[in-house]
Amino acid sequence: MRILVTRQKIHGHPATEYASEIRDRLPDHEVVHAATPEEESELVADADVVTGPGSATESLLDSAGSLRLFAGVYAGTGHLDLDSFREAGVAVTNASGVHGPNISEYVVGALVSMARDFRRATRQQDRREWRAYPTRELHGSTVTIVGLGAIGRAIAERLEPFGVEQLGVRYSPEKGGPTDEVFGFDDLHDALARTDHLVLACPLTDETEGLIDAEAFRTLPPDATLVNIARGPVVDTDALLSALQRNFVGSVFLDVTDPEPLPEDHPLWGFDDIHITPHNAGHTPEYFARVADILAGNVERLAAGEEDLENRVV
Amino acid sequence: MRILVTRQKIHGHPATEYASEIRDRLPDHEVVHAATPEEESELVADADVVTGPGSATESLLDSAGSLRLFAGVYAGTGHLDLDSFREAGVAVTNASGVHGPNISEYVVGALVSMARDFRRATRQQDRREWRAYPTRELHGSTVTIVGLGAIGRAIAERLEPFGVEQLGVRYSPEKGGPTDEVFGFDDLHDALARTDHLVLACPLTDETEGLIDAEAFRTLPPDATLVNIARGPVVDTDALLSALQRNFVGSVFLDVTDPEPLPEDHPLWGFDDIHITPHNAGHTPEYFARVADILAGNVERLAAGEEDLENRVV
Repeated sequence: MRILVTRQKIHGHPATEYASEIRDRLPDHEVVHAATPEEESELVADADVVTGPGSATESLLDSAGSLRLFAGVYAGTGHLDLDSFREAGVAVTNASGVHGPNISEYVVGALVSMARDFRRATRQQDRREWRAYPTRELHGSTVTIVGLGAIGRAIAERLEPFGVEQLGVRYSPEKGGPTDEVFGFDDLHDALARTDHLVLACPLTDETEGLIDAEAFRTLPPDATLVNIARGPVVDTDALLSALQRNFVGSVFLDVTDPEPLPEDHPLWGFDDIHITPHNAGHTPEYFARVADILAGNVERLAAGEEDLENRVV
Repeated sequence: MRILVTRQKIHGHPATEYASEIRDRLPDHEVVHAATPEEESELVADADVVTGPGSATESLLDSAGSLRLFAGVYAGTGHLDLDSFREAGVAVTNASGVHGPNISEYVVGALVSMARDFRRATRQQDRREWRAYPTRELHGSTVTIVGLGAIGRAIAERLEPFGVEQLGVRYSPEKGGPTDEVFGFDDLHDALARTDHLVLACPLTDETEGLIDAEAFRTLPPDATLVNIARGPVVDTDALLSALQRNFVGSVFLDVTDPEPLPEDHPLWGFDDIHITPHNAGHTPEYFARVADILAGNVERLAAGEEDLENRVV
């Protein structure tokens, strides 16, 4: 089969690395890389598989001749026109699962950084000040994870030996999960009231947009910490600002914001107990290798005539 | 029995809290707290048990009448004159084990903070700059833990779900350990050569003083990170400085330094990829509760005529 790698760069790595990872895994197939828009249009005509971000769905499908699979390189497919792929009879897969190790490490590191107030150490170091200060401990605390998909499960797994109580909140609580207890969104406040550390790891949906609002901050204990590695709008930014200003919440670690990127004049930047990372919790040097693993398995399934692909969404 | 709590404050908590934790656990015994040196000398005369830092061993033993147990509140007893206690027929216990959760959380947080370069996020936030940057991942890396006592084991246990290879280095490798492989100090360099992240969790002894020296930095891979939660002199400070200046080592997280406290004009303060915390990795709000747990068990053993005490060193 002929596999086309479109223009893309992820986490600062070039698409040529992705093409090379695919070639390593599929030596019996042809892997071509389009470096320009013209090459993309030209090469897609003969491609059986296209893999990339897929930001130009229409022109891609217009040019395709024998396309069987579009393998997206992001965990989400919200940016794709899935109906067009469906109508064209082209399968679509996503890269779900590639963020387990990296984002879950980020979350544990964020929780410890806040509990141990590493930022205070940085500020003291800047002043060359040696002075012990009190810290908290995760052990014995309650961590609530909203969203128990691949990322939420990876977080729960890594927190297991830390001796914390874990509460999970998910759309379908009847599915259970790896946490000590599982709540539905209807019972969110029952979980929040018991929460020392709140971790948002859910997709952005109608249900989760603005989930952490003024009412949620009212229910949370005053020193509860918050980590958002989901999507910015899961937290109501005005409610967060108000909670911070009124000392209604403890430290906050945000990898995503609303708006995003955060404008230079936004007040969130200025709080010293807010930690802002530029939406790179999902960064990993292994990204292309992990996406290539999923793709290679699916290409082999397609070549064997199978339709049951990993991470298939269409 | 009569239990005397001497003057002490640990992690910013007053000795009265410790006395109160002991009273909660031993309602049938008498707990007294000495608030001044005079009260200490006076109250020790009738005490069966004294608990505190024990910095004035001699005057304490001179005044003691019926003392059976000195329960130290630090993990180490290097500051005590153990022979004097032995000659006086007084048992001595330490507080080993109270640092498991707090220090192991610190270590995991330090490793993730360096891998994900949280300090860069802080610097960017100070400039209100939203810009993604590359990070590393612990997953798939090799973590070497020097010292497999209570703290080293607690670290290994918490790293278990992170998908890292763990190497342990200890004085008695024949005892094995929770890491994937265990090395003796003679084979330290074999472990260092494979190390991505080096964690020092050993006691300070003749064997470990200056253990991480110029030769060790020569063997470590150039981007290896270092966490020292042992004692400052386990790392040769000049060798560390030289390694930093020559780009022979990656990021460094130090809770202990040599000299300590670090003087204001010391060059270590100024490196942005050195993280210095003021010897508070062992801080926990639970400190006195955990020490009281050990003490209460031992008092009950003594009251029952048992000699086999927890954490007994004399």
